Amino acid sequence: MHIGNQTIHFENPPSILECSATVGPKEKEGPLGNQFDKTVDDAFFGEKTWEKAEIKFAQANVDNLMEKANLDLSNMDYIFSGDLMNQCIASSFAFRSSNIPYYGLFNACATFAEGLGIAALFISSGNANNCLVSTSSHFCGAEKQFRFPLELGTQRPDYSQWTVTGCGSTIVTSQNVGPYITYITTGKIVDMGITDTNNMGSAMAAAAADTIYNHFKDTGKDLDYYDLIVTGDLGYRGTDLMNDLLKKNGMDIAHIHTDCGKLIYDSENQKDTLAGGSGAGCSSTVFSSLIYKRLKDLSLNKVLFISTGALMSPISSQQGESIPGIAHAVAIETEVN
Amino acid sequence: MHIGNQTIHFENPPSILECSATVGPKEKEGPLGNQFDKTVDDAFFGEKTWEKAEIKFAQANVDNLMEKANLDLSNMDYIFSGDLMNQCIASSFAFRSSNIPYYGLFNACATFAEGLGIAALFISSGNANNCLVSTSSHFCGAEKQFRFPLELGTQRPDYSQWTVTGCGSTIVTSQNVGPYITYITTGKIVDMGITDTNNMGSAMAAAAADTIYNHFKDTGKDLDYYDLIVTGDLGYRGTDLMNDLLKKNGMDIAHIHTDCGKLIYDSENQKDTLAGGSGAGCSSTVFSSLIYKRLKDLSLNKVLFISTGALMSPISSQQGESIPGIAHAVAIETEVN
Repeated sequence: MHIGNQTIHFENPPSILECSATVGPKEKEGPLGNQFDKTVDDAFFGEKTWEKAEIKFAQANVDNLMEKANLDLSNMDYIFSGDLMNQCIASSFAFRSSNIPYYGLFNACATFAEGLGIAALFISSGNANNCLVSTSSHFCGAEKQFRFPLELGTQRPDYSQWTVTGCGSTIVTSQNVGPYITYITTGKIVDMGITDTNNMGSAMAAAAADTIYNHFKDTGKDLDYYDLIVTGDLGYRGTDLMNDLLKKNGMDIAHIHTDCGKLIYDSENQKDTLAGGSGAGCSSTVFSSLIYKRLKDLSLNKVLFISTGALMSPISSQQGESIPGIAHAVAIETEVN
Repeated sequence: MHIGNQTIHFENPPSILECSATVGPKEKEGPLGNQFDKTVDDAFFGEKTWEKAEIKFAQANVDNLMEKANLDLSNMDYIFSGDLMNQCIASSFAFRSSNIPYYGLFNACATFAEGLGIAALFISSGNANNCLVSTSSHFCGAEKQFRFPLELGTQRPDYSQWTVTGCGSTIVTSQNVGPYITYITTGKIVDMGITDTNNMGSAMAAAAADTIYNHFKDTGKDLDYYDLIVTGDLGYRGTDLMNDLLKKNGMDIAHIHTDCGKLIYDSENQKDTLAGGSGAGCSSTVFSSLIYKRLKDLSLNKVLFISTGALMSPISSQQGESIPGIAHAVAIETEVN
């Protein structure tokens, strides 16, 4: 049921059946290193290019997900997938032999929550039993494409973020197993006028604030309803800015908020990660490991999960355009009335 | 209701409320020149870059669509949009001031039918009243990005296609006005092993054949059920190949089939369009003009519309990968039982 302006309430809520996250060496060394299903020490993953490596991260992770769920890819009714590479080739090539109906999505680093939301609608409307949602990113491929080839050794400003190398994948199911996707709040594009492509967190902060604000407005829930509000990849700078923006609108969520981009790296001992993690693989790997495990062991029961994306390209930035942001929210709860 | 492996039947089918198509000079000179809502003689559309021009095509077309429908963008519950530019910036920038929940999609030139299908599900499940579906492409931007800058004057092989400059946009609605979206058949990724990025039509032909084959298998309909089966942008080469593939599987649809890429240019008098039109704007502009008008005046009553996409990037092709194809089918009928 559509409520308010941007929110859908699933009265017959789909469940999250299983998750898997496979990450690279930097993520292995970080605070969540032992939370991930698989870690790969070689960022090339045995391939010759970063692009082929990202495809392999996605394939290996989905293979692991199916094994964990005791299912086969052929049990999926739909695949919803996307990534940051031009024309989303990590996803298209990862699933080109899948033989499963495929929806390619692109909302940059917000694609994972976009996919969870659309998959939830396919399930709740009775049109699918199992949907695979998967997004990935790769630090080396992203730097090469969006900023500078790593070989140049370009110095990065302290507000820049580190793109997560990895893939997070989730099965959304009609089985009544929980945790449940109870609400989705679909984000609008919000542009703060930021033009510095290193400053992703700030560019996405207003979109995150807008979606969170409207989620509470649409649902009428109290601010303390959720155990945790977790954004995708605002990092340190973006988180502060989002909290400021929400406070100005009368909402203080700082005490129950964290950000996947802050969780995934150790800002003390991994100083080159600077303002924190980012990338389409950031929110998907943290959700598919830490967050999902906490929901399964009931140490978290009500989570508002918001993937955040910056919708620019190198071309748009070179042509002087600012960076539009977007954020999609998914409410996940261990019990439903 | 999900039927067969890939198809959803909308028992409470959404309608197409209104369409608009805005195209460039080449399309104006073609056989459908007088079918489009607006034609723009300047491929730059008064902008300084091809990218900004494509954004303007999308904005101008959606403005025209809203005027035709006597609606405002604020009456849309969701926007589903995508294009061919890296990171889909034509769409993100066209709608960055829309203030409407936004789902970015990417299935290359198959994005329009992808959007129609997901929008139809949002409507039919009671979660939206009006959804905007819009896709665009630009010949000059696409050549620059996927092949060679135009200024090089590179000769193109005779099986290459001409990317449509333009935007096609449609409002899918819960109003019971018809024509109706009765079925969608979601495509799987199909890779024929073609590696020549000029040979898009052939790369997509097997995907189109696969989706059409499975649509009839899933629905159990007779081959002569539809007045017209219209693919997105296979062009001359791809159409022949698709028909051959279907014939090998016992399906002869050549007599009721045409292709938007064949319809949009005059192969005799526009010889540089070679094997026909392509691009995310090809199927969307032809659907939003000719096909929609024929459905409205009841000269067509049952149409199976299939957008076709090639899911490669310049990087994947440079790295020796073949070109995966995808095709999504949407059945549109003027009457429902």
